[in-house]
Amino acid sequence: MGRRTLRLLVEYEGTDLHGWQVQDDVRTVQGELEEAFERITHEKVRITGASRTDAGVHALGQVASLVTDHPVGLDDLARGLNALTGPDISVLDVSEAADGFNARHRASGKLYRYSILCRRAPSALRSRTRLHVRARLDVGAMRTAAFRLEGLHDFGAFRAADCEREDRRIAVWSCSLLERDEEIAIEVRGPAFLKNMVRIMAGTLVEVGRGRMCADDVSAALESGDRAMAGPTAPAHGLTLVQVFYGPRLPRP
Amino acid sequence: MGRRTLRLLVEYEGTDLHGWQVQDDVRTVQGELEEAFERITHEKVRITGASRTDAGVHALGQVASLVTDHPVGLDDLARGLNALTGPDISVLDVSEAADGFNARHRASGKLYRYSILCRRAPSALRSRTRLHVRARLDVGAMRTAAFRLEGLHDFGAFRAADCEREDRRIAVWSCSLLERDEEIAIEVRGPAFLKNMVRIMAGTLVEVGRGRMCADDVSAALESGDRAMAGPTAPAHGLTLVQVFYGPRLPRP
Repeated sequence: MGRRTLRLLVEYEGTDLHGWQVQDDVRTVQGELEEAFERITHEKVRITGASRTDAGVHALGQVASLVTDHPVGLDDLARGLNALTGPDISVLDVSEAADGFNARHRASGKLYRYSILCRRAPSALRSRTRLHVRARLDVGAMRTAAFRLEGLHDFGAFRAADCEREDRRIAVWSCSLLERDEEIAIEVRGPAFLKNMVRIMAGTLVEVGRGRMCADDVSAALESGDRAMAGPTAPAHGLTLVQVFYGPRLPRP
Repeated sequence: MGRRTLRLLVEYEGTDLHGWQVQDDVRTVQGELEEAFERITHEKVRITGASRTDAGVHALGQVASLVTDHPVGLDDLARGLNALTGPDISVLDVSEAADGFNARHRASGKLYRYSILCRRAPSALRSRTRLHVRARLDVGAMRTAAFRLEGLHDFGAFRAADCEREDRRIAVWSCSLLERDEEIAIEVRGPAFLKNMVRIMAGTLVEVGRGRMCADDVSAALESGDRAMAGPTAPAHGLTLVQVFYGPRLPRP
């Protein structure tokens, strides 16, 4: 069979996971998958994720890739990985990828969703995956501010202090607000993001929803490049990596 | 202020709870609420739930009642209970009820939902609240069989061996199948249910969906009164108490 490149589609519930990236002594998605792969094939591989999600962040459609010489069947591998990782990690699909495919380097874009539950009482059933906000948020004002975040900007004000990426300019394809019943979702699509960028965008838009900031403050934060001008970093548990895009950079900005 | 009767609306995620009813040494919804109430008011009360849900069963709208002499404010009580119980229990509302209101005895009906995720891969994000079924289920056949379960029947074949209720006749108001994307929900409404009845109904309908039983087998099971003729008891984690009805017996069968 020779050398094969495989592509995994992975869902996870990040509450009890220390993020994607393998670390000693804690459960991570990468660590769990690599260990399970080794138990199945007796082969150590590196499994590369499109996004190195933070501790507590969830994924509906993380994409990962690996290179192996093992002839394991695709369905057997999916079943084996699901059996060996905890119930908070699900391998939705395993497929053969073209030679040289790398889930991280070949990704042309990502869709993240930040989910907010907007009501007085917390929700026992949704507390793991939604930020609970007691205040009524002004979604119209949030939409207006979100529009300021779309397009090409220097997002220096919207990144963690330890962000290592040199180029701070990102072309955000869209930042959309979706409302249903008591829930508000902020969906952000773009080619790539700075560290914590989506969470800081969400934290800033929540400030706008609360009336503590306005759209002009958001523009001013962008122009300043000063982290202190943007809102707080929203907690990890509200964030979900929904989809990773490959191929031509679609949808276009 | 004198003697007051209070009514609580409670949501819970049953995974880490040993059901509603208070027991020594394990977390239960009743136990957590009674303990929190005592910490707030320094008064021991009995909190009565409309449904004594099993270990692992969830609730979106459990109703509970208590009688107290304490003048605690309704909002303060809701906030206090939410702060003192874990994140898997949420008190959605506290209100004053009429004298003599008892959440259990006054309930005129309940709506339960049994949720099934029907796809090959398990779901990391939904594994706590849905039964995962890999097979494709025949929802049409399930609907036909569900119709046989509606109306007044002796549900002797659909109850746990240790069910203590004497009258095994129940008038099921409705048993509906709802489908959306990969999810199937079985919604059952009725005035009361035998022990495990909804879970056995769900387990039986899943057998029908798999093609292992047909509608006539369901009728035969009902007529026999023999537990062995019905399907298996579906696991607790797929079941949610959605709503409790009070007042005139609406909706009528």
